[in-house]
Amino acid sequence: MLIEVLPSANLSVLPYLQNKIVIVIDVLRATSTMVTALANGCQAIIPVLTPEEAIEKRLMIPGALLGGERKAIKIEGFDLGNSPFDYVPEKVGGKRIIMTTTNGTRAIRAAAEAPHVWMASFLNLQSIILSLYRHLESNRNLEGILIICAGTEDRFDLPDTLCAGMLIDQLRLDLEVNDLAKAAMMLYSLAKDDLVNVIRSSDHARRLMELEFDRDIIYCCTQNILPIVPVLKEGEIVWLT
Amino acid sequence: MLIEVLPSANLSVLPYLQNKIVIVIDVLRATSTMVTALANGCQAIIPVLTPEEAIEKRLMIPGALLGGERKAIKIEGFDLGNSPFDYVPEKVGGKRIIMTTTNGTRAIRAAAEAPHVWMASFLNLQSIILSLYRHLESNRNLEGILIICAGTEDRFDLPDTLCAGMLIDQLRLDLEVNDLAKAAMMLYSLAKDDLVNVIRSSDHARRLMELEFDRDIIYCCTQNILPIVPVLKEGEIVWLT
Repeated sequence: MLIEVLPSANLSVLPYLQNKIVIVIDVLRATSTMVTALANGCQAIIPVLTPEEAIEKRLMIPGALLGGERKAIKIEGFDLGNSPFDYVPEKVGGKRIIMTTTNGTRAIRAAAEAPHVWMASFLNLQSIILSLYRHLESNRNLEGILIICAGTEDRFDLPDTLCAGMLIDQLRLDLEVNDLAKAAMMLYSLAKDDLVNVIRSSDHARRLMELEFDRDIIYCCTQNILPIVPVLKEGEIVWLT
Repeated sequence: MLIEVLPSANLSVLPYLQNKIVIVIDVLRATSTMVTALANGCQAIIPVLTPEEAIEKRLMIPGALLGGERKAIKIEGFDLGNSPFDYVPEKVGGKRIIMTTTNGTRAIRAAAEAPHVWMASFLNLQSIILSLYRHLESNRNLEGILIICAGTEDRFDLPDTLCAGMLIDQLRLDLEVNDLAKAAMMLYSLAKDDLVNVIRSSDHARRLMELEFDRDIIYCCTQNILPIVPVLKEGEIVWLT
């Protein structure tokens, strides 16, 4: 089984999507927040590229909430930011959320042509792995797994790469890997015993700490607490069934 | 001193160039070959983007040689490929070479707006480091070092990243690093005792081995044998003086 990791989602993603399960990772914080929102009873998340697109979309979906960030801060006029702690049951229970983030939702939209697009984070990694076993077993035409690190402005993101490394490390399959998949495993093997501190030293975490989102980082580094696989289905992110 | 590593040279490189020393790395094989060519008496290397541009340029430079590759193979009608073993003194001595490679020359051209653009490889890493000390000492307005891994088709390249990691590891400066610079150091620390084999397991090396370029890989992994810093000066790559 071929497993590839890409450092960010730019235009060149498209050639890699065919017959692949695509796993989008944005540890800080989009995919961590999406997993949390679904666990807290949110009905569906609709990823969009811009705040304008979000506002326009809401006109068609009565009762939907607007969520997202620019420069890590809640967009003006939106109901929710990009912190998982915004997405509590009393706010998101039973709701649909239209969401736009700088990197995460862009990566998801870039991958939308793939037959399967799943959202991973440390919070739900074990469920991703179990679902991969099931899917690869029942879909023999799948040719591989493509992990897209949503990254930060098309650059390399250490938290996302470490999460990809943990996923590959724990996947008990005979794997053929690309360079970044190999590097991700190497980095995870070095960082796993001090994961929170390594992630706190990353560029993105340092920006979040300046904005006093320390507890978001701690939470987003917590492993395997949410048994959910968010999946893109007809433009909406819902539980994998 | 800020040191940043970028995984490839795409359009987003430009905002990072101002007041920086840019170091382009393409271990397999463009920058390794350029260092070798200059060491073997080549007068200058002119990096161009396409074979057509190379042929057109030669009309204006009598006696110049054409060098480069597409898909790792010498371009039809060209004098030299992208193997350092093509660039022997009897062929390149005293000559100017117009060169186009898939990733390396593109990265160099993308960085051309920076005040200093140098070419690094394992072959000349010690000279790069010594020159960095001298330049940072005498140019107090320099704000940092930007390392561009030429990469492979905008993806992450393990050999280039390991070379960046070795450079940062051996640079005895008080450094502030971005995520990929930190990852590069971590990867180098894991791989340094088995560098050739780790590099041989990379995507690009495996392609080169299929084409029977094994000895190119061994040669390109050799450290600190060439005391040369190739530098971009008015569109040509020459010795740093």
